[in-house]
Amino acid sequence: MDLASFVQRSEGEWRSMRSGHSLAFQHFEEVLSKISIEKLDVEDPRVKELIATHSELNIEPVSPFRMEWSAESDWEPDDPNDVSAGSCVLVPLPLDEHSGWLLRSVGYAEAEQATGQYRLLEEGTFILKTRYGQSIAEERIWFVSDNVRCRASVLRTSEGSGVLQTSFSSEVRRIRV
Amino acid sequence: MDLASFVQRSEGEWRSMRSGHSLAFQHFEEVLSKISIEKLDVEDPRVKELIATHSELNIEPVSPFRMEWSAESDWEPDDPNDVSAGSCVLVPLPLDEHSGWLLRSVGYAEAEQATGQYRLLEEGTFILKTRYGQSIAEERIWFVSDNVRCRASVLRTSEGSGVLQTSFSSEVRRIRV
Repeated sequence: MDLASFVQRSEGEWRSMRSGHSLAFQHFEEVLSKISIEKLDVEDPRVKELIATHSELNIEPVSPFRMEWSAESDWEPDDPNDVSAGSCVLVPLPLDEHSGWLLRSVGYAEAEQATGQYRLLEEGTFILKTRYGQSIAEERIWFVSDNVRCRASVLRTSEGSGVLQTSFSSEVRRIRV
Repeated sequence: MDLASFVQRSEGEWRSMRSGHSLAFQHFEEVLSKISIEKLDVEDPRVKELIATHSELNIEPVSPFRMEWSAESDWEPDDPNDVSAGSCVLVPLPLDEHSGWLLRSVGYAEAEQATGQYRLLEEGTFILKTRYGQSIAEERIWFVSDNVRCRASVLRTSEGSGVLQTSFSSEVRRIRV
């Protein structure tokens, strides 16, 4: 599977069950949310704007897309890490057939613009590493069927190898009525 | 990483945070448990006994091991799928450097002896597919550091491609005092 097919398969409306694990405190978190993924044109002004911030990379984008999410229920309203709704633009800049950079207008671990490195494993798993100011996130996404994706993420401290938290989402495609 | 190294790294005492997702009902399950993994000698009678049930495979075992688990807390005591404590013997029978059969004395999805097919991806992820009477389980295990492993599993109906449930465990090595 190449990146374009991966984005293609991801497009649509998803319902997500997400479990977060805080390892130090053995604390569980559960969030139900809706996710929407839509492809963007490479000429879209939002795509061009993001690329302009990394003109030094000088790589043609492939399959840029936009992600939007909103929590349906949030059982931990006081958790400062929770972002209950948001959207971001993501632009893959391939280095070769299986890896490249991924620009995102809003980060996953911290709410800042971020640049990650992705790899697409032969058997179809997408792996993304993103370095933020305070942390490093590694996300893995794989399809278990056309209508079910899994997403596992690990957050580490940027200094040293301490693992702060992990999370896992089961994403089921929503059928539009 | 080869299979022997993978088993080597897995050996020890682990504390597990496990989240289960029932996709149809959007139901979350949370279990804290202890897991112990110890290598067994290929001449161990428990290993020989398991291999004897699959003498047709006629493959020399590599790095057999025993796993033991017990729930520390189980917040869903009425769930018939919960197995709060148990142990099993696992015997890898490699076909080549990256794949093979895995015999287990007790199954993951159903409490019967089971034979799975494993693959070890180049970047270190161990993938195991096991067919049971009523279901097919796919487990993925990967190390995020020497002392943290992640384990994601997907359970499907054996007929058709329906995904029944997923689960995710964060396993942190326990330091013996």
